[in-house]
Amino acid sequence: MNKGLFLTVEGVEGVGKSTNIAFIRQALESRGIDVVVTREPGGTDMAEEIREVLLKNRTETVAESAELLLMFAARAQHIESLIKPALAEGKWVISDRFTDATYAYQGGGRGVDAEKIGILERFVQGGFRPDRTILLDASVEIGMARAHKRGVLDRFENEKTAFFERVRNVYLDRMNNEPQRFEIIDASKTLDNVQRQLKTVIEKIIDTSV
Amino acid sequence: MNKGLFLTVEGVEGVGKSTNIAFIRQALESRGIDVVVTREPGGTDMAEEIREVLLKNRTETVAESAELLLMFAARAQHIESLIKPALAEGKWVISDRFTDATYAYQGGGRGVDAEKIGILERFVQGGFRPDRTILLDASVEIGMARAHKRGVLDRFENEKTAFFERVRNVYLDRMNNEPQRFEIIDASKTLDNVQRQLKTVIEKIIDTSV
Ligand SMILES: Nc1ncnc2c1ncn2[C@@H]1O[C@H](COP(=O)(O)OP(=O)(O)OP(=O)(O)O)[C@@H](O)[C@H]1O
Ligand SMILES: Nc1ncnc2c1ncn2[C@@H]1O[C@H](COP(=O)(O)OP(=O)(O)OP(=O)(O)O)[C@@H](O)[C@H]1O
Ligand SMILES: [Mg+2]
Ligand SMILES: [Mg+2]
Repeated sequence: MNKGLFLTVEGVEGVGKSTNIAFIRQALESRGIDVVVTREPGGTDMAEEIREVLLKNRTETVAESAELLLMFAARAQHIESLIKPALAEGKWVISDRFTDATYAYQGGGRGVDAEKIGILERFVQGGFRPDRTILLDASVEIGMARAHKRGVLDRFENEKTAFFERVRNVYLDRMNNEPQRFEIIDASKTLDNVQRQLKTVIEKIIDTSV
Repeated sequence: MNKGLFLTVEGVEGVGKSTNIAFIRQALESRGIDVVVTREPGGTDMAEEIREVLLKNRTETVAESAELLLMFAARAQHIESLIKPALAEGKWVISDRFTDATYAYQGGGRGVDAEKIGILERFVQGGFRPDRTILLDASVEIGMARAHKRGVLDRFENEKTAFFERVRNVYLDRMNNEPQRFEIIDASKTLDNVQRQLKTVIEKIIDTSV
């Protein structure tokens, strides 16, 4: 049995990750690939409980290191109890966000030192990294406008535009540093156009992976 | 205004920590000291939510690193939002367990490498440590017998005797390595006897701290 492939989908709020993961799943399944879709923070019962603690609107100020440790606690549980077992069975795992999001949100957004994030990344993941990452990129205005249509905002969605500009810039920097891992999609276009771009990228990923 | 003193109380399940913290508080207050009593994991709303995630009995196997990260996430929040502010106001903070318990339970009990714990201790605490630690020591049989009288057991209390033997031994090792920080109490004695021992220790701590 082949080892599966670990694919992550990244991008700012409302850019279309959840919408397009359903499309990516279908495209892969139509090529006979066994797919597991998951998300971060979350993906297992325990990790989803940690997600609730993280996203809850609260009066208590959340310590920077507490937020970071919770994020990686959920990730450790997600990797050990879902992602690695599925990959070992030859499945492809698609995760709605992963560690790039920590560098983008906690690092870029909140200004946490990337070296602090790196300590926990090594602590939890060792050398484990996504095989491929699809970055849905659009201006913050477009993403926020789409997210707002969905209703009540969580603790992250309540941040200001400048916060999300920093998030987006970290994503773009990381893509430039690891061009072989990332595929960028112009997510400002119509859903039809975005999915045509995705189709091309998915074919390429399949062709270079199987 | 003087900076307060950070006092932790440690020992295996049922040895009498909660019972005697009430006594320690009274003894300090009768000397005019402002006291804040707290516990780990927990101590703030958010940290108590993390405690629930940690202690819940679940079918999902909890990854070693996830448990450790949750423990330190709760601790980070506890330190930043409760312990340090109280100490800055000159209060004495008494915590029912702290990082020694992580070395004892996750390290000794579960066999997690002490160096892994050390990475997170430095990450969260930098050089922050308890000023003094009272170790209530008794045989595991005595502690377990007392804890069982209280009813339903959580995920840790369900462990076997050998687990708690290892926990106790790590506590004793740590005391031997830092004799200036630790005060040991023979907790196998009657409550009256234990509290006479505590009274002597508390007087000594006050005399060397004020
Ligand atoms: N290309 C597009 N054009 C117009 N609307 C879109 C497009 N892609 C997604 N949307 C709509 O934008 C909204 C947000 O999309 P979606 O929930 O998939 O974003 P997301 O990236 O998963 O957001 P979040 O980060 O908050 O989870 C949805 O209402 C979706 O239907
Ligand atoms: N010296 C003692 N002699 C007899 N019984 C005691 C003594 N100290 C405490 N107890 C009883 O033992 C039980 C456990 O005590 P307590 O809850 O204070 O322990 P603990 O160390 O806080 O336990 P845990 O680690 O589970 O929180 C209680 O019923 C308490 O009344
Ligand atoms: Mg989404
Ligand atoms: Mg207790």
